[in-house]
Order: sequence, then structure tokens, then C-alpha cells
Amino acid sequence: MEDTYGDLVSSLAQKNDKRICLLVMDGVGDCDNSGRGTALEIAETPNFDKLAKASALGLSLPVAVGVTPGSGPGHLGLFGYDPQIYQVGRGVLSALGIEFALDRRDVACRLNFCTIDGDGNVTDRRAGRIPDDENRRVLEKVRAGIRPPQGVEVFYETVSEHRALMVLRGDDLDDDVPDTDPQATGVPPLDPTSGSDSRTSAIAKNLIEQVQEILADEPKANMILARGFAKFPDWPTFAERWQLDPAAVAGYPMYRGVARLVGMKVVAQPTTAEDICAETIRALADHTFVFAHFKYTDKTGEDGDLDAKVQRIEEMDAALPALLESPPDVLVVTGDHSTPPSIKAHSWHPVPVLMRAPHLRGGDGGRFTERDCLGGQIGTIFAKQLIPLAMAHAGKLEKFGA
Amino acid sequence: MEDTYGDLVSSLAQKNDKRICLLVMDGVGDCDNSGRGTALEIAETPNFDKLAKASALGLSLPVAVGVTPGSGPGHLGLFGYDPQIYQVGRGVLSALGIEFALDRRDVACRLNFCTIDGDGNVTDRRAGRIPDDENRRVLEKVRAGIRPPQGVEVFYETVSEHRALMVLRGDDLDDDVPDTDPQATGVPPLDPTSGSDSRTSAIAKNLIEQVQEILADEPKANMILARGFAKFPDWPTFAERWQLDPAAVAGYPMYRGVARLVGMKVVAQPTTAEDICAETIRALADHTFVFAHFKYTDKTGEDGDLDAKVQRIEEMDAALPALLESPPDVLVVTGDHSTPPSIKAHSWHPVPVLMRAPHLRGGDGGRFTERDCLGGQIGTIFAKQLIPLAMAHAGKLEKFGA
Repeated sequence: MEDTYGDLVSSLAQKNDKRICLLVMDGVGDCDNSGRGTALEIAETPNFDKLAKASALGLSLPVAVGVTPGSGPGHLGLFGYDPQIYQVGRGVLSALGIEFALDRRDVACRLNFCTIDGDGNVTDRRAGRIPDDENRRVLEKVRAGIRPPQGVEVFYETVSEHRALMVLRGDDLDDDVPDTDPQATGVPPLDPTSGSDSRTSAIAKNLIEQVQEILADEPKANMILARGFAKFPDWPTFAERWQLDPAAVAGYPMYRGVARLVGMKVVAQPTTAEDICAETIRALADHTFVFAHFKYTDKTGEDGDLDAKVQRIEEMDAALPALLESPPDVLVVTGDHSTPPSIKAHSWHPVPVLMRAPHLRGGDGGRFTERDCLGGQIGTIFAKQLIPLAMAHAGKLEKFGA
Repeated sequence: MEDTYGDLVSSLAQKNDKRICLLVMDGVGDCDNSGRGTALEIAETPNFDKLAKASALGLSLPVAVGVTPGSGPGHLGLFGYDPQIYQVGRGVLSALGIEFALDRRDVACRLNFCTIDGDGNVTDRRAGRIPDDENRRVLEKVRAGIRPPQGVEVFYETVSEHRALMVLRGDDLDDDVPDTDPQATGVPPLDPTSGSDSRTSAIAKNLIEQVQEILADEPKANMILARGFAKFPDWPTFAERWQLDPAAVAGYPMYRGVARLVGMKVVAQPTTAEDICAETIRALADHTFVFAHFKYTDKTGEDGDLDAKVQRIEEMDAALPALLESPPDVLVVTGDHSTPPSIKAHSWHPVPVLMRAPHLRGGDGGRFTERDCLGGQIGTIFAKQLIPLAMAHAGKLEKFGA
């Protein structure tokens, strides 16, 4: 699959001093709540209302019609990386989620502690969902006992419950390593060298065998299942791709991780709306692009707490005037996906977009809501098209052809 | 990159006697002008208003979201040729721009006169931007002195200032010839045979060396830099692709050139709105498709002259009733891109489209403006989809599958 659109726009990118800010209100989109409307419709947002009147509105499809994205693909789309092309392996996503500092030589995989019986067959694929403390205790034993082969470093990190991360670091490692999780009980773990003759799969096999010995006398977590071996991706950085000098303002590990995945520098880690706006203003002084991330609109959606989601939107609304005092040349406000409280999870619904920029066809009027965004001048576009559109308005794209 | 859509529609094309007219008001789209609205919104257009009430409206994306097209890609899109696939080399575009009659064996390139010093290093990549007269005088010297190899003809034409065109004509020429412009001063021109062992690159090298000798005693234009070597493209003609018998009515060289690029016959060269409508009516008597081009809506936009752009729109409005007296079966009015006077250049904004045709879902009402087109039944589609849509309304596309 070729990234025709991204490559075209990238070839037209040119630098200037104009500032672009992408403010992501994570999971901001919603569906109706028992006839009361969406969280954005229910919220009282005088500042967004005023801003919307002078802005272009639209909707953003994170991946494709009907497709619900995870946080990784959701943000990659917003950064202008087609999430169907730029796919991150599970191992790398696990590392991002706990903010393990991957480098470009690393291969990461997700581990599940499991229980095996005397014949080596899996009896519980999640080792009784051991608590985090036990996970940490058992991993400490693994760290103390493991002897990686010469030239390779190995890292083990707790994620949560039965979940952990393994990272191999060394020259010329690859991620051609099959999963060892048999996805069933009563059978042994799979052999990571079966179907692969890569050097890394042999290393992985050896390490897993060592772990089995180290954990032999554990009652529950006496073995590991590995899956999603993945190398840190060799993608063009955001700076190379768009000729922008990017900074990330993000309070949560996953989002700092996704930002680093495309080479953004993380300059601040605020979590409240007020602090995010203040740090964004600061970052815009030194960077032509700032990605600012607000987590709570997603968190409250996942909690199924509509009132809290409405309140978080109102918090961002209250913080907005500070950001608009010395506004970026182009301001894009949107989400990486919708998180309806009625679903308590990410969803596939297109996400409201607001763009304040030069050269608009006037303001679209209306409010920053799903319904008003539907009729806006931006139309319904893919998330990956937002950075290019913002760059066009900032005069950062050359003409295509003569 | 495959042209799946174009190939599908082409395979369904069938002839009938129905007439389609594509009236291109070059650069007609606009963005807001300090709260006054767009040129189409400001203009008084009673005839377009009346026509819009009975027509389908929509918006056309010339290339892709955020991408500003040149005139070549803009028109190729309108002719149903995906501009990302059907890319024209700079040499061919330069030839089209001065209406040099390229034939299918030709290789064209763009020349810049430059100044070199005694060591052969470039000191000025534009030869002090010599005036057109000096360009013509120096080229005349080149023409008199040049000795092309056997079997090859060579043509030199003035474009403007330091810009010129070189065309090689002969059998089996290719365009695998690297640029010689070093894009820097203080270094010699590049060797067109470096990295290419094509026969044409050797010919080009020899010709450039001859030119250097001929111009040795010139004070400014004592050398040439060549770039964008390109063959006349071997594309399916418009007639083959759409089973239409096309004619072009266009007063400016570039647009006649683009029309000829897809094999259209140029039947008239009017420039005023009134003459364009009269010649279009005449051409529709003999052709199932007429492309009519009106330049001034772009020119006034590039001049940054909003009032003049408004006036040019009103001129076309005044001429419209003549065209509608014996109207084509399908009339499409649109632009190849937007040219906002506030930007004084082509832009990326979607372009208003009006389609009067049988089998509409009623008229969309409203006016022929960016805002009203946003809500129209055509929606926002790619420029390359307009000819297929017009053909559908004219009964010129067979059913797909049984």
C-alpha cells in the first residue's frame, strides 16, 4: 500500500515562520445520550461558540468509515501518517504506553505471564491475572537471573496484572519472530523459531527458556507468552515529512510516546486544560508546530460519565481565551477519535474539527458540535488530511505542477 | 499508481448524440474578502442565480485536500485525468505555454540563460534576468550556429526574460536526461550524461556544448541550463477515453496546449465571455463535447483585484443567456482551481460546480457560490469525477455488471 497522498504533500512542504497548533481533546466526539444530545452539545462553551463563528468546521474520520481506532492509529492519523500504512507493532505500542525509551535498534514484545503444568502445557494464559505487585516481584527474579547473549541487552518492565514488556537491544536485531501465545490452553507455548530462521527468533527462544527455568517454582506465573515482536519503526520523522519543527505538550505517557515515535520533542507534561494552554503558548514561541494533548475528555468517556465529560469540555472552554491571546496562525481543535460515555470505549464516529486560519471562506457559524461540524466548509475528511490542510492555510505548501 | 476509477468509467463509456459542455471559469473560487464574502457572493449574477435554481451544485477538489494545482494539473483533472497519475514534465508544460506544436516524437526541456565565469562556474543562474529582446537576439545566434546530429531537428523558442524552450525532434528519442541546473552558483553546470547512458542525453550534452561556444562572447547570457526534459506523453486521448468527440474553445495558449495534450481539436480562440458563449454554441453543433475556457476570473484573482474579478464574473453572467438559448444536454460550469484575490495566486480551496442536466434530484436552489455549493447534491468530489458524472447524466455510461 502506497502513501500517495502523504508523499505528494510531503514533496510540496516548505518552511516558513507561521505557527500551527493541533489541540487534541482526546475522545471528544460523542453520540446522542438518551435524547440529551452529545457532550459537546450539552456543555456550555461560550468561548468555543465564539471561536466557531470565526472558524471553519468539519468532521475527521480517524481511519475509515466504521473503524474504531486505538490511541496509536488515532494520533498517527492526526499527525498525517495514514494509520493503515504506518502500523505500529504491539510490542512498540506497549513500550510507548509505559514510556519505555525505545531506541531505533530495539525490538520490543508484549509478554503475558501464564501458568503451565508439569507436561509444559498452558493451563492459564493469564496466570490468574496476578496483581501488579506480584508481576513486579516475579520480573525482579527474571532480571536477576537472565543471561542475554553477548552483544544483546534485555529489559523487562511491568505493565499491569499479568502483562509485561520485553525489549531486546543490540545491533542488527529483527522482528521476524512469531508469537509464542498458542491462544488456547492444554497445549504448550509455540516455538518462536518455527517458521522463522532469524537470529532474533533464536535469541528470543533462548531467553524464554531461561525465564521458564528461573520461574519454575512459581505457583502461578511460571512461564511467559510473547507476542507482537516489533522494531522501532523506521519512518520519516514529522520534521522531515512536513518541514515543521514540532513540539509535544502532553501529560500522559502514551501520547508522549506516539509523539516521540514520529520524532517530536516533548517540551512539557501538563494535564489540566489551563496548564496545557499556558505550556502551548510557551512552546509556540520556539516551534512552528505544537501538538497539545488533553486526556480527560477520553477518560471520562471511558468511565461512562457524561456529566464529567461535559465538565472537562467546559474546563477546556474556560482555558481557551489564554491560548487565543497570542494565537497561532492556524489552530486546529479536534480529537483522535470519539469516546461516547454511552459506549464507555473508543468509537468509530467522525470527530468534530474546528480550524481557525487565514484564507477561510468566512466563519461557518454554529457551535463546535458534531451536528454543526457536519455542515462545515471542511466537510468530512480523513484525519491524515488535517495537517496538510493546516499547512495550506499557513502557506507551507508549494503549488503542484505548473 | 493505478487509475482504477478512470479505467472503470472508460470501460463503460458509450457514444450517443447528447452534448456536454464544460465551461471553465479559470480560478473562479475564492475565500472571504475581509467579511465581504467571495467574488461569486459579491457579484450580481441574475442569470447564474436562475440557472442554479434548476441545477445541481457541488464542490470540486482539483487534486487533493490542501493541494494547490498549477494550470496543467487543474485542467487534466477536469478532463478526467487524475493529475497525480497523468503528470506532465516541465519541458512539455513550457512548450504548451507558448503553444509550440509538439508532436509525439518530441522531447522538450526548459532552458534558463545563465552567466558563467572563465573557469566555467555559474555566477548568475538567470543571466541578470535579461529582457525578452535580448533573449530573442541571443536565441537567433544559437539557431544560426547550431548543428544538430543527423536525424535530429532542434528548436529554440523564447519564453520570457531568461527563460527559453528547447525541443529535440527525431525517432526514438527519450527523456532520460538529468537536469544540468546545479541550483547553485560558484559551481559548473551539471553533466546531462551523468547517471544516464541514454542516446538523447549524449545529444543534449553535445548541443549544450555547441551553445556554450556560440555564446562565448556574450556578456550575460553566455551559457544555458536545461531542466525538465520530457516527452510528449503517450496517454489515451480524450476521444478514446470517453468516446466523445471533443472541441476546445480557448483564447489563451496554455489552455489550448492542455487541450491538445489530450487530443482535443481547438476550434476557436475567443477571449471575451460573449464570444466564448457564441463559439461554444457553434462548436456544439459539430461536437459531442466542448471545453470552453474563460481566463479573466483567474487573471484578476492573480492581480489581487477583487472588483475586477467580480466584474468578470458578471460579464460571464451577462453572456450566459446566449449559451442557454440552445443549451447542451449537460452543462458543467466550474473552475480548474480557486484564485483568491486576497492570496493573488492559485489556492487549494474546493471549486464551485454547477451542473444543469437531465435526471437531477431537482434543483438545489441557492446561488452559484462557494457556500451554497457546499450543501449541493453533488457533494464535494474530485475534479476527475466531473466528466464521468456529466456522462452519466447524458446517458453515455453503461451499467457496471449485470
